[in-house]
Amino acid sequence: MKSMTEYLTFNTRTKRDYINITSMVEDVVTKSGIKEGLCLVNAMHITASVHINDDEKGLICDIDDFLETLAPYEPISKYRHNRTGEDNGDAHIKRSIMGREVVVAVTNGKLDFGPWEQIFYAEFNGQRPKRVLVKVIGE
Amino acid sequence: MKSMTEYLTFNTRTKRDYINITSMVEDVVTKSGIKEGLCLVNAMHITASVHINDDEKGLICDIDDFLETLAPYEPISKYRHNRTGEDNGDAHIKRSIMGREVVVAVTNGKLDFGPWEQIFYAEFNGQRPKRVLVKVIGE
Amino acid sequence: MKSMTEYLTFNTRTKRDYINITSMVEDVVTKSGIKEGLCLVNAMHITASVHINDDEKGLICDIDDFLETLAPYEPISKYRHNRTGEDNGDAHIKRSIMGREVVVAVTNGKLDFGPWEQIFYAEFNGQRPKRVLVKVIGE
Repeated sequence: MKSMTEYLTFNTRTKRDYINITSMVEDVVTKSGIKEGLCLVNAMHITASVHINDDEKGLICDIDDFLETLAPYEPISKYRHNRTGEDNGDAHIKRSIMGREVVVAVTNGKLDFGPWEQIFYAEFNGQRPKRVLVKVIGE
Repeated sequence: MKSMTEYLTFNTRTKRDYINITSMVEDVVTKSGIKEGLCLVNAMHITASVHINDDEKGLICDIDDFLETLAPYEPISKYRHNRTGEDNGDAHIKRSIMGREVVVAVTNGKLDFGPWEQIFYAEFNGQRPKRVLVKVIGE
Repeated sequence: MKSMTEYLTFNTRTKRDYINITSMVEDVVTKSGIKEGLCLVNAMHITASVHINDDEKGLICDIDDFLETLAPYEPISKYRHNRTGEDNGDAHIKRSIMGREVVVAVTNGKLDFGPWEQIFYAEFNGQRPKRVLVKVIGE
């Protein structure tokens, strides 16, 4: 069994952002030389998500609106977590809805994707460096 | 390390549907000959979900109601994504809530499940052929 | 390829509870002797969740409030599932939101975590023994 582990770092300009990281993950798979296996991609912080969706601007706005309706950033006092001095209570909830990680099949040395699948890093509490782990195992 | 990859295709008669695919996944695990490992099952389209729940009709209605309340199909104009000419903005959100994939342990050559765990393919934008990937790795 | 499978049992005093199980999962990884691989941790019951978040009391209350707002326990008659004689319709929905499982990278023999990542077992229908599966595969 072979494995490869890489860490990607993102520092978004805005508090919330949605970044298509598919090609970066593909590069790790290629570098690993693994032909058949599984690729785990996960946010290493608990106020960010890795998930798979379509890369379409309108959809990204829809998702952001949906999350902000369910778990709004303000009022800050809405979240008990924010009594610790943080203002990211909403971000923890948003990430819980969207999920921490994806596991993608690697087949014939490539991410085995349907036609519209793209991997997104979703930042809900950005403007500082945060990491994503990519691990490929297989043969 | 051994691996096996199969693709299942579903074409639902209704726009939304919930199909128990457990026995199909079990067949792939058996065919693979893998005794200890992991089995990934994921929707290959971004308007469908693979998730695990109880196979109980009332519960499936409850889940469908819950999703339709949170992200209703209509009005179509509610979703910016639908300005592209699609009418599936809701389906992208519904699938984000329910999740794209499950990873199931394979132990002694079988899906290592609790008493009520069943794998469902949840279609949120059906009436055309759509695929599910099953990949087993292990030994 | 090596693998190790263990089952953890939890019997919570309250109907809903959130238990940090990180050290128990770490023990399984250590015992497995696996240095590079993947670790699956999943609830074996469909009214409980395994997810990763920060171990902060206020946040746990926020998550519980959020789930109870979206899918309240009462009225029992709100859920068709409860017509079977159960009262756990809400618990199935809560778990669908929070997710069944996590997959964690094992690197250099340890769970490869960001600074705040902690694994939680979230019980939504407790007061009886329920199981969590931990499976590590790798080398």
